[in-house]
Amino acid sequence: MGDTVYVVNPNSTVAVTEGIDRACAPLRLAGGPKIECLTLAEGPPGIQTQRDVDGVVAPLLRLVGELEPKAAAFVIACFSDPGLHSAREATKRPVLGIMESGILTALTLGQRFGVIAILPGSIPRHLRTIGGMGLSERLAGERAVGLNVTELADEAKTLDRMIRVAKELRDEDGANVLVMGCAGMAQYRDRVERAAGIPVVEPTQAAVSMAIGRVRLGW
Amino acid sequence: MGDTVYVVNPNSTVAVTEGIDRACAPLRLAGGPKIECLTLAEGPPGIQTQRDVDGVVAPLLRLVGELEPKAAAFVIACFSDPGLHSAREATKRPVLGIMESGILTALTLGQRFGVIAILPGSIPRHLRTIGGMGLSERLAGERAVGLNVTELADEAKTLDRMIRVAKELRDEDGANVLVMGCAGMAQYRDRVERAAGIPVVEPTQAAVSMAIGRVRLGW
Amino acid sequence: MGDTVYVVNPNSTVAVTEGIDRACAPLRLAGGPKIECLTLAEGPPGIQTQRDVDGVVAPLLRLVGELEPKAAAFVIACFSDPGLHSAREATKRPVLGIMESGILTALTLGQRFGVIAILPGSIPRHLRTIGGMGLSERLAGERAVGLNVTELADEAKTLDRMIRVAKELRDEDGANVLVMGCAGMAQYRDRVERAAGIPVVEPTQAAVSMAIGRVRLGW
Amino acid sequence: MGDTVYVVNPNSTVAVTEGIDRACAPLRLAGGPKIECLTLAEGPPGIQTQRDVDGVVAPLLRLVGELEPKAAAFVIACFSDPGLHSAREATKRPVLGIMESGILTALTLGQRFGVIAILPGSIPRHLRTIGGMGLSERLAGERAVGLNVTELADEAKTLDRMIRVAKELRDEDGANVLVMGCAGMAQYRDRVERAAGIPVVEPTQAAVSMAIGRVRLGW
Amino acid sequence: MGDTVYVVNPNSTVAVTEGIDRACAPLRLAGGPKIECLTLAEGPPGIQTQRDVDGVVAPLLRLVGELEPKAAAFVIACFSDPGLHSAREATKRPVLGIMESGILTALTLGQRFGVIAILPGSIPRHLRTIGGMGLSERLAGERAVGLNVTELADEAKTLDRMIRVAKELRDEDGANVLVMGCAGMAQYRDRVERAAGIPVVEPTQAAVSMAIGRVRLGW
Amino acid sequence: MGDTVYVVNPNSTVAVTEGIDRACAPLRLAGGPKIECLTLAEGPPGIQTQRDVDGVVAPLLRLVGELEPKAAAFVIACFSDPGLHSAREATKRPVLGIMESGILTALTLGQRFGVIAILPGSIPRHLRTIGGMGLSERLAGERAVGLNVTELADEAKTLDRMIRVAKELRDEDGANVLVMGCAGMAQYRDRVERAAGIPVVEPTQAAVSMAIGRVRLGW
Repeated sequence: MGDTVYVVNPNSTVAVTEGIDRACAPLRLAGGPKIECLTLAEGPPGIQTQRDVDGVVAPLLRLVGELEPKAAAFVIACFSDPGLHSAREATKRPVLGIMESGILTALTLGQRFGVIAILPGSIPRHLRTIGGMGLSERLAGERAVGLNVTELADEAKTLDRMIRVAKELRDEDGANVLVMGCAGMAQYRDRVERAAGIPVVEPTQAAVSMAIGRVRLGW
Repeated sequence: MGDTVYVVNPNSTVAVTEGIDRACAPLRLAGGPKIECLTLAEGPPGIQTQRDVDGVVAPLLRLVGELEPKAAAFVIACFSDPGLHSAREATKRPVLGIMESGILTALTLGQRFGVIAILPGSIPRHLRTIGGMGLSERLAGERAVGLNVTELADEAKTLDRMIRVAKELRDEDGANVLVMGCAGMAQYRDRVERAAGIPVVEPTQAAVSMAIGRVRLGW
Repeated sequence: MGDTVYVVNPNSTVAVTEGIDRACAPLRLAGGPKIECLTLAEGPPGIQTQRDVDGVVAPLLRLVGELEPKAAAFVIACFSDPGLHSAREATKRPVLGIMESGILTALTLGQRFGVIAILPGSIPRHLRTIGGMGLSERLAGERAVGLNVTELADEAKTLDRMIRVAKELRDEDGANVLVMGCAGMAQYRDRVERAAGIPVVEPTQAAVSMAIGRVRLGW
Repeated sequence: MGDTVYVVNPNSTVAVTEGIDRACAPLRLAGGPKIECLTLAEGPPGIQTQRDVDGVVAPLLRLVGELEPKAAAFVIACFSDPGLHSAREATKRPVLGIMESGILTALTLGQRFGVIAILPGSIPRHLRTIGGMGLSERLAGERAVGLNVTELADEAKTLDRMIRVAKELRDEDGANVLVMGCAGMAQYRDRVERAAGIPVVEPTQAAVSMAIGRVRLGW
Repeated sequence: MGDTVYVVNPNSTVAVTEGIDRACAPLRLAGGPKIECLTLAEGPPGIQTQRDVDGVVAPLLRLVGELEPKAAAFVIACFSDPGLHSAREATKRPVLGIMESGILTALTLGQRFGVIAILPGSIPRHLRTIGGMGLSERLAGERAVGLNVTELADEAKTLDRMIRVAKELRDEDGANVLVMGCAGMAQYRDRVERAAGIPVVEPTQAAVSMAIGRVRLGW
Repeated sequence: MGDTVYVVNPNSTVAVTEGIDRACAPLRLAGGPKIECLTLAEGPPGIQTQRDVDGVVAPLLRLVGELEPKAAAFVIACFSDPGLHSAREATKRPVLGIMESGILTALTLGQRFGVIAILPGSIPRHLRTIGGMGLSERLAGERAVGLNVTELADEAKTLDRMIRVAKELRDEDGANVLVMGCAGMAQYRDRVERAAGIPVVEPTQAAVSMAIGRVRLGW
């Protein structure tokens, strides 16, 4: 078995992968597995639709296959968990998805979780997955910041909208903990948490943490 | 808008498509839409894993795109509903999946439904989808006939196993209605229903019925 | 077996039956079953309470019994599905209820459904039925237009209120699809759908569609 | 307001009413409301189908209306709770159903409840109601003794079958508490409880208890 | 077996016990069990946190042990039901908790219940318990009056806030019945009910009622 | 903040703590937090009842308070998660429970999880907690090995019974993944997993893994 946790960003935007990479820094331990973050070259610039989700599965599985000899585990770093169950069939290595891991981690931090989505159109897709996870009862709500790619480049605006959504999830929907519904935005976590006054889970960090545990335990 | 309901078998086994086609016969009405059954040439011989499911989405969407001008609606004739939600994004025409339509139709025929799967390995995947549909409370259970492709060619054996599973779902799990968890096996429906003494839903027929309604109503 | 789908309006208001009849027009196909819409003379002018619901069961069953020789299927065209399960015991013909069929059809059109009720007092009764259907997880919410019979005669006012409620279900409750929680108001469907920008299911049409499929398939 | 809790047996079998009456004896307290048990003359000999359930609502409501001036509360003593929600609309007095009260009381005695039904055909109807009560998660299972009226007259046989079903609910389905799914069989309660070693709720007693509390509290 | 229902206030505030005692008055019947209300001297002045809840279990069990010879039943009169399941293990007498009994009673009065909590911080704890009771589907919502101990001494202010919260639960969350989420405030019940126009359950009264029934029935 | 993850065995049996300590070995990384396993001296020899669970909360909280300055996180190593929510209130450090963490980790390894309990009497308590976690839909079942302390000292017998229960959970209940419902038995994990052919989660390892992640991330 390999010694590296591969964190695959299934969209082709390298800046997102770089954000993911920075978020992994505290999880790189002497004695622990290596953590390498990759960009799926064949992916779209962003994953916004079910079609995008389904479309990245084939190249993702190819990448998983290529990396397997060197891999200790895989993390799929897109909040729609594309190809999660396919990848689990395709490799014996642990495969974690950031949506699944992010939400499961949130369940240890509060009774009802809220999700901060980027786009409103992703919400029904996420609800379907949450239903398939049997977790609808714990969901307080999901709301979208509703910014497009250009607007997301404006950090002040993005933070402002995230905080607004966070407070709505807390006050209108009764969330006790929040999950960021996207990869690569870890730099906002602390500030959203401080502003909302309730825990905020960065899902890639949650997934990499779970992956490291699995690697160390060998199961 | 086109005038044809395209029923796409996403596996490449023409014999399955032929079985589907025969099952559609009673739904071909003088004044209704045409019903055409197609084989997805790019599909695997059978869809058995999540990887198979995810793998047919891209060619399926291509086919949907090509057929759209002539299409009144689409039916995806595989019990894993591959690409169902992607296809709904990709076309304005109604898209029905046989798992979804089969189960929803079963809900009008009994309080708790059982699913007759082909392979045991499909059950967790189906449960995930049923959870995403929010229908777990109505599920009595799912059990597999557990026959491989060669064995499935033996009609007497297949029927025997289907009936055995049907009775277990009824007696052990409390099912009041059954759904056949596969396409292309409509020829067994009547006999399983008579043997089990509870209604049995053939899911492709259920989906095509719902598609015709949607076509006629224009919504 | 007879050749007619009987659509029974269990209230005694003939204008409602006429609206239902018009809504069935697109479902009358050459080669398909006849569709005949009837008024239950013994019913109250409108069905507003659980008592009204329970009260129409006996005359409804009498009517079902009388029509059975000529019937291919029955549709009970009241959103409380009065007598649905009794009628299913009383006849071997398929019996569809518009609440059940309308909601099941909505599940193919969006992840979470909203219901546009007429009267606020019907909401707890509907929620009870939705719970019995095991579908509470998919329900976004139900809200009432809150107009009495006289006010419902004012088409502009009715449409305005329906649209307002539709938008609240979409924006406040997160509905992705709507079900009209009453029979005989199909004329508003298109306009509410266009105004709300999400699909709107007319439940009698949904039920008649499902009934036709069942008739054609013979199960 | 009247001073009598009317316990209405909606079937016409006086022997059942007599069994109910004996079961109420310990609840007749000095200073408490009177408890009077009545037979609904218009009811069928036994309530076995949904049609039977719906069919007794009208005479039941008439009786409720007649008794109201003397009534402090009503208990509907049939495990299908016929007319429960109609009666609640029809009178301002508290109305309790024995299914509802029996199950709610069971929830204070064990984590998962089992129901001992008389007829297998009643199970889907009961599950529908339990779903409408939102209590499916607590249900361990429901099983029927499967005896007809003649066989039920054989007390030894009935007890034997009840105990067998009770043990199956405990051992196969994981029930921690049982509810007797019928009225008028309170004489078996102690013996079934001793044999099964888990609490057994007699539902009419549970409902009358709740009714007395409501009467005393005036809400 | 003893002849007294012991209603234990697990906080040490005697004024609360006195309020509970007054609320029990209508349930004291000539032929019924005695009802005695006690203050747990070792309890904190109020139970506000999970730590408070867990902290009173040991002294509560000691008290239960001491009282057992004279006890017919026990009621734990704190809305967090501290020690409920421990006490049920520790004594053969019936033990009722006011949260459990209050909510179960509410289920007979409306389809969806709302809870009027005192402190916002209690809501996640209550939701956890409601989840463990399998009743989340019936919960409309829980909202807090948000007053501290000093403010709660101001009766006009307390009533005003309770009514405001009651109306929000009814109008924003769709509650059809309300449960007071605290002990010792029975004096507000009538006025909140009248103001909100929907039933309001006082949970200690509900629990004592259920306890009396259990005592009389001997199970 | 301290640098040690304290894993507290809330029963007083040192051999259990030693088993826990051995199970933590693979999670001790050069650059990671220290992991120290402690025995709660005040605990009972084993935690078997709700009373045992509630009884250890006070000494556990005292220990948490004492250790806090040196603590990076806490793990409560008893499958009933005693004092979990109290401890979360009592310290700002992350607190993980092995039941919660074990089950959440299992959700990444299979669609439906089974729990291997030690004693049958613990099952209702566990189901209550699983309900409070909103995870009942994912639970396949829980079954007990049913061995007492003396028998548990016989390793061959214990392994044999664990494997038998594991296979029943897989074959009778449909579990795809198993959770060991106790601390200190990690030595059986591999063998049960190999025998059952489905993943087996050792819950203390799962909790310590999650704790390390939280420590490293600082949230």
